[in-house]
Amino acid sequence: MNSAASSAAPSNGLSGAYSEVRDATLALVGPLSAEDCCVQSMPDASPAKWHLAHTAWFFETFILERWEPDFSPFDRSFRILFNSYYNAVGDKHPRPQRGLLTRPSLAAVLAYRADVDRRVLALLARRASEPELAEMLVLGLHHEQQHQELLLTDIKHLFSRNPLAPAYQPLPARDTSPAHPAPLSWHDFAGGVREIGHAGSGFCFDNETPRHRVFVEPYRLASRPSCNGEYLAFIEDGGYADPRHWLSEGWDWRVSEQRQHPLYWKRTGRWQEFGLAGLRELDLSRPVVHVSYYEADAYARWAGARLPSEAEWELAAADIPADGNFYATGELQPRAASTQEMTQLFGDVWEWTASSYAPYPGFRIRPGAVGEYNGKFMVNQYVLRGGSCVTPDRHLRASYRNFFPATACWQFSGIRLAHDA
Amino acid sequence: MNSAASSAAPSNGLSGAYSEVRDATLALVGPLSAEDCCVQSMPDASPAKWHLAHTAWFFETFILERWEPDFSPFDRSFRILFNSYYNAVGDKHPRPQRGLLTRPSLAAVLAYRADVDRRVLALLARRASEPELAEMLVLGLHHEQQHQELLLTDIKHLFSRNPLAPAYQPLPARDTSPAHPAPLSWHDFAGGVREIGHAGSGFCFDNETPRHRVFVEPYRLASRPSCNGEYLAFIEDGGYADPRHWLSEGWDWRVSEQRQHPLYWKRTGRWQEFGLAGLRELDLSRPVVHVSYYEADAYARWAGARLPSEAEWELAAADIPADGNFYATGELQPRAASTQEMTQLFGDVWEWTASSYAPYPGFRIRPGAVGEYNGKFMVNQYVLRGGSCVTPDRHLRASYRNFFPATACWQFSGIRLAHDA
Amino acid sequence: MNSAASSAAPSNGLSGAYSEVRDATLALVGPLSAEDCCVQSMPDASPAKWHLAHTAWFFETFILERWEPDFSPFDRSFRILFNSYYNAVGDKHPRPQRGLLTRPSLAAVLAYRADVDRRVLALLARRASEPELAEMLVLGLHHEQQHQELLLTDIKHLFSRNPLAPAYQPLPARDTSPAHPAPLSWHDFAGGVREIGHAGSGFCFDNETPRHRVFVEPYRLASRPSCNGEYLAFIEDGGYADPRHWLSEGWDWRVSEQRQHPLYWKRTGRWQEFGLAGLRELDLSRPVVHVSYYEADAYARWAGARLPSEAEWELAAADIPADGNFYATGELQPRAASTQEMTQLFGDVWEWTASSYAPYPGFRIRPGAVGEYNGKFMVNQYVLRGGSCVTPDRHLRASYRNFFPATACWQFSGIRLAHDA
Amino acid sequence: MNSAASSAAPSNGLSGAYSEVRDATLALVGPLSAEDCCVQSMPDASPAKWHLAHTAWFFETFILERWEPDFSPFDRSFRILFNSYYNAVGDKHPRPQRGLLTRPSLAAVLAYRADVDRRVLALLARRASEPELAEMLVLGLHHEQQHQELLLTDIKHLFSRNPLAPAYQPLPARDTSPAHPAPLSWHDFAGGVREIGHAGSGFCFDNETPRHRVFVEPYRLASRPSCNGEYLAFIEDGGYADPRHWLSEGWDWRVSEQRQHPLYWKRTGRWQEFGLAGLRELDLSRPVVHVSYYEADAYARWAGARLPSEAEWELAAADIPADGNFYATGELQPRAASTQEMTQLFGDVWEWTASSYAPYPGFRIRPGAVGEYNGKFMVNQYVLRGGSCVTPDRHLRASYRNFFPATACWQFSGIRLAHDA
Repeated sequence: MNSAASSAAPSNGLSGAYSEVRDATLALVGPLSAEDCCVQSMPDASPAKWHLAHTAWFFETFILERWEPDFSPFDRSFRILFNSYYNAVGDKHPRPQRGLLTRPSLAAVLAYRADVDRRVLALLARRASEPELAEMLVLGLHHEQQHQELLLTDIKHLFSRNPLAPAYQPLPARDTSPAHPAPLSWHDFAGGVREIGHAGSGFCFDNETPRHRVFVEPYRLASRPSCNGEYLAFIEDGGYADPRHWLSEGWDWRVSEQRQHPLYWKRTGRWQEFGLAGLRELDLSRPVVHVSYYEADAYARWAGARLPSEAEWELAAADIPADGNFYATGELQPRAASTQEMTQLFGDVWEWTASSYAPYPGFRIRPGAVGEYNGKFMVNQYVLRGGSCVTPDRHLRASYRNFFPATACWQFSGIRLAHDA
Repeated sequence: MNSAASSAAPSNGLSGAYSEVRDATLALVGPLSAEDCCVQSMPDASPAKWHLAHTAWFFETFILERWEPDFSPFDRSFRILFNSYYNAVGDKHPRPQRGLLTRPSLAAVLAYRADVDRRVLALLARRASEPELAEMLVLGLHHEQQHQELLLTDIKHLFSRNPLAPAYQPLPARDTSPAHPAPLSWHDFAGGVREIGHAGSGFCFDNETPRHRVFVEPYRLASRPSCNGEYLAFIEDGGYADPRHWLSEGWDWRVSEQRQHPLYWKRTGRWQEFGLAGLRELDLSRPVVHVSYYEADAYARWAGARLPSEAEWELAAADIPADGNFYATGELQPRAASTQEMTQLFGDVWEWTASSYAPYPGFRIRPGAVGEYNGKFMVNQYVLRGGSCVTPDRHLRASYRNFFPATACWQFSGIRLAHDA
Repeated sequence: MNSAASSAAPSNGLSGAYSEVRDATLALVGPLSAEDCCVQSMPDASPAKWHLAHTAWFFETFILERWEPDFSPFDRSFRILFNSYYNAVGDKHPRPQRGLLTRPSLAAVLAYRADVDRRVLALLARRASEPELAEMLVLGLHHEQQHQELLLTDIKHLFSRNPLAPAYQPLPARDTSPAHPAPLSWHDFAGGVREIGHAGSGFCFDNETPRHRVFVEPYRLASRPSCNGEYLAFIEDGGYADPRHWLSEGWDWRVSEQRQHPLYWKRTGRWQEFGLAGLRELDLSRPVVHVSYYEADAYARWAGARLPSEAEWELAAADIPADGNFYATGELQPRAASTQEMTQLFGDVWEWTASSYAPYPGFRIRPGAVGEYNGKFMVNQYVLRGGSCVTPDRHLRASYRNFFPATACWQFSGIRLAHDA
Repeated sequence: MNSAASSAAPSNGLSGAYSEVRDATLALVGPLSAEDCCVQSMPDASPAKWHLAHTAWFFETFILERWEPDFSPFDRSFRILFNSYYNAVGDKHPRPQRGLLTRPSLAAVLAYRADVDRRVLALLARRASEPELAEMLVLGLHHEQQHQELLLTDIKHLFSRNPLAPAYQPLPARDTSPAHPAPLSWHDFAGGVREIGHAGSGFCFDNETPRHRVFVEPYRLASRPSCNGEYLAFIEDGGYADPRHWLSEGWDWRVSEQRQHPLYWKRTGRWQEFGLAGLRELDLSRPVVHVSYYEADAYARWAGARLPSEAEWELAAADIPADGNFYATGELQPRAASTQEMTQLFGDVWEWTASSYAPYPGFRIRPGAVGEYNGKFMVNQYVLRGGSCVTPDRHLRASYRNFFPATACWQFSGIRLAHDA
């Protein structure tokens, strides 16, 4: 959260950036009914309506309440209903019960958003030059972008549990994904004392700081994420039946969850995969996605490789523009690789790293509620890097650290292999 | 299911009865949004949309599929989605996942109902005189009335879990409930060999048959259900803290569920009660409602009494018209008693009996799917009698047997005390 | 608990009866090590050491504490450790943690028993003629006999969980069981107003009282319990794969517990059965045993029959001497039937009835701790009748009511079929 | 597992080392009864008998089976019963059911150990010079030492669950612990590229390899572990009631486990602590012990400090002799610090580090069953360093990595604070 000169504020100042991000959220629920927006398909997922409301709550709580003269909340009950996990702010509605909130209605939540937008824009018109306000606003926009991605992953999960296998949107008319993935090649990277963590003056989350030195041994990375065809070979080789490939805890997870394949694959004679365009033939050329850390690790071991550390990943990505198959392509699924160069570090699939999510040396949790943003989750989670096909554009950086428990599959998580040099 | 001359078919023949019952179901969802209709608040409850669809499914499956020439289902997937528990009919969607069905939409389900209605009425126009069809149709109407009550109990539960405590409907303008309940008096009933079970030619469910002889000792029944004020005295006497009043299993339930009062009571300095009109002051004069069998039994023991057997209840109710504070009064809550005569046997609150739900001597499960209606639930449940303030009119009989597990609280269940003579 | 003239007091007065029953308990642990006596294999079962100690606790608490001058407990901590469920007596050690008590040692518990015995006998020498003392002592002896049976069922369960399948004792040298069971025949019983419940002046538990009138329709009972061969036909006919035979709750139990056969059967190419003599070939001629209520009910339905009510059972057994294959035969497994007459009502296997465990009309719970003996368990359990091959001799009566939840399998529970006449 | 020149083989060659370690295990069960040795108090803990048998199984499986001519197992069933987690070796008895094995008896297990000892010593007499055998034997001895510590932690847990609070052994006659701990002082350590991991030719586990370079920033470590008095100040300051101190997952753990203090503390008016000498007054001067990672982290945050990384810990300990208050002192509880120098890095309490347990760069899992020793546990666990008051002497090294999940409390785990310089 270094600065207001944010990558999320591309064109016409803060107000423009604000409107652009907020409108993008609204656009996401275009294909959804009020019913779709209300239901929670598991405790880890949230209803779309909750995402809509919580992101408004963030601006109301951290911008309007602080800077708006004569602040009065839109609805007092929303202060608790749509607090996610900020203990410093007060009570909160229990996470597993977010799906019980048929009231307030979707319409009421949209009105809440509109009211917050009107008031934030009015405030910006008067006080946009205030650095702290600008900084907090930019944080709110990045926060909102995170929920944009979560909204899509959560809807995908909800629809996957429906026997009708509804589509969020049709496939794009033109398929840009190669029929066959470029062969996987290996790229060498030098070792030594290097620096990782956020550099420069643009926005970043607190967990990307401070920039610091690390020592890495020379290493090799795969040119591209592992694809469905390669992962299927693991399955067909008995990968899900042989505990030698698995972490002990991963094997126990596999057994108790009765997993035989990635979360959204389905075996019905032939292999199919559920996606935001519904249930379709499994495309062997595309990157495998929706695997747990355990599956990623087992696959890597079976393949005679390993997962990269987050430092290895970041050093390889440091000089590459953060472009790729993000949400803006409209495809909403990963594409097959088209080159043997280092490719698809950004977009397509989040890449599991072997790194447990931990504070960087010298990391300080900030005082106040915003200090709860990241730091308190730094245990028993693993870092993912690079964004996915449902990550908003201009949201990612080489230093960006996403994190989920080893069991998580419903994010667009994939695998890039690594090797000692 | 004795006959087509049904109490649910009051006036203008089968078609009229059909339309009347079906329309009454639709009227129930008038105050509800599509969101309200979609969510499932616990595994025991179903979404309103599911009730709407399942009752259409019943007619489609047991009427149209059998009698309609060139039958073709409205939507093949609905055959599984909206089957409740009829194994003989085929697969079914898992009960705890009914709330995940944001699709089909409420609009689609209403279209399903309209299509079924059109076809059933067309069929009736041609073949109303066919006895088997008429019999099955009447069963379907009574089935639908049962789901009308469940729809209301399930919505009440859903709304109770919402911190906003929404009201399903406002209180009626005129309050018909006495400010003070008539004193509880005791009425004597003779013992001997008596008959219970359905008599006469009207409709009944299979579990009310066969009519059969039982031996009862002389007994006494309370004139009216126990009221909130009386139950509060139990609480204030430490009733929830003293295991001596409780069945051992009931005590374990109380401890693990941390119960201190009936399900919808709330202590916030003063006592409040959540109802279909929202959260209101607890009215001490009205019958206590939403208690489990364990609570009913503990209260009775504390009061030096016991719960009646279902035979005792039925014999006392046999000659009383099945009128009372049912759904049609529009009050949707029990009323205080206005007389010391035997009163409120019908309507207001379902009355827990001490009788485990079991087949009557000579009971036969009918062949085919309809045989799954009642018989397979005859274990570990307790019989309730008399209907409640959300039971449809003309649905109840003295011989009517409702049944729920001892833990169930979300039904409108109350207490009538009994004594040995 | 009617009288001191107890069936458990056969010969030489109370002191003799006391010593005989207490010594019989000790004899049961002869084949067991201290380790065997210490472990709890599931929450429903208790360690043998706990049975030894709790039965001593019963006499210490209900006899010595009340009648012994200058009473002082053997060990103050035992008052809590070995209380089972008597809330009126004070705190108790949690049931699922009985197996954690490696201290006190088995030796210490045996010393506790010896001390209690010495003091009880001394008391009896002085005050045997006191009616209340005599009555309580006889209750204690019947209580101890119940724990003798439980000790054996619990050891059987513990050993069944051990891959070594240890034997509690070898098979008797001489096998008294016929190679083929007598054919099952049906016996008719008249209906009408009849009496059940304990009659006469001998001992009984409170739950057998009061004797009272019931109305029964004419009925038929199977001459003998259903045998393994008959039950195997149910299995081979797909009985465990067809929900139509099962109560809905029973089917859910079967699925979640993954049951394919009775608890102690094992399929390893051929069928084996684990028993107190270890793992042996399944003997098709002997009564099936260790089935749940759900299995008994499903089997009966498959066989075109039903389970008897407890009244039907008791009326059939009323005039038959309570003799049979009880513990004293030393066989510890049920025998095949040798006659087509009504046989094996007593001993061999407890027979599930269709009757939910409920108080008899006019039943009163007695004041004080002894009132907790039976009454508070009268919900969600089913009555079993007739005793088993591990029930102590002279413990059973026609009016004796045993009770367990429908899920219970580790008791020696079997099936006698019934029919409407 | 670098070499046979083991720190566990101090004096008279392999045979001597073997006998010494094996006898030490037997000595541990001296104060225990067969009952004590049989029971499992939670799934994470194992019965003492199981530890005795499994350590024999290790030598039988990895030494005798490979090198003994005409190998035949002591008891075929033990191959499965006492396999812990080596999938490559075959089936294994489920961990949570280890406490059900009342057979084989303790005596039989001791006979098993004696037989294995006799045969191993005979083998050594013939083939001690074989490097691979020697290497595996030394691994077996270190493995056995690990189980010595586990045996004590597991017995402590078992006894803690017993209301009698039995003592494993009395307190030593002479108390060597200072009445007041030396004040906590801070020691500075330089940063830079440093090396950690096992160096030299002595034995180590595979997870300590390879030695490798890391970059560390300058840092400070507390001179001694935090003591009970300091931890009590955290409690009295409301530390267990304020989520701001806790990791989010740690707070959820605290709430669901209802923790208010370290595992073995007890508040009864005054504070007591359960230990291997029974329940005693809490000694404020001794190091706090039996805290989870969550508690250690919360305490550190409250104290304005943090936990050290494992590299920071190891670099500070690298030049310090691995001496301290280990098992051999006979005290079996941590001592208060007597100096402000860096002290008690070894012995007293295991020190939680902030490092998630992960493979060192270049780590290779070894082929075969021994490869399952460490590597497959490298997820969702945290590294502890330095050994405890129940760790065998000559078992620890500066590079030694212990690891447990963040929830684990029953190990002798404590806290040493760290700071950025």
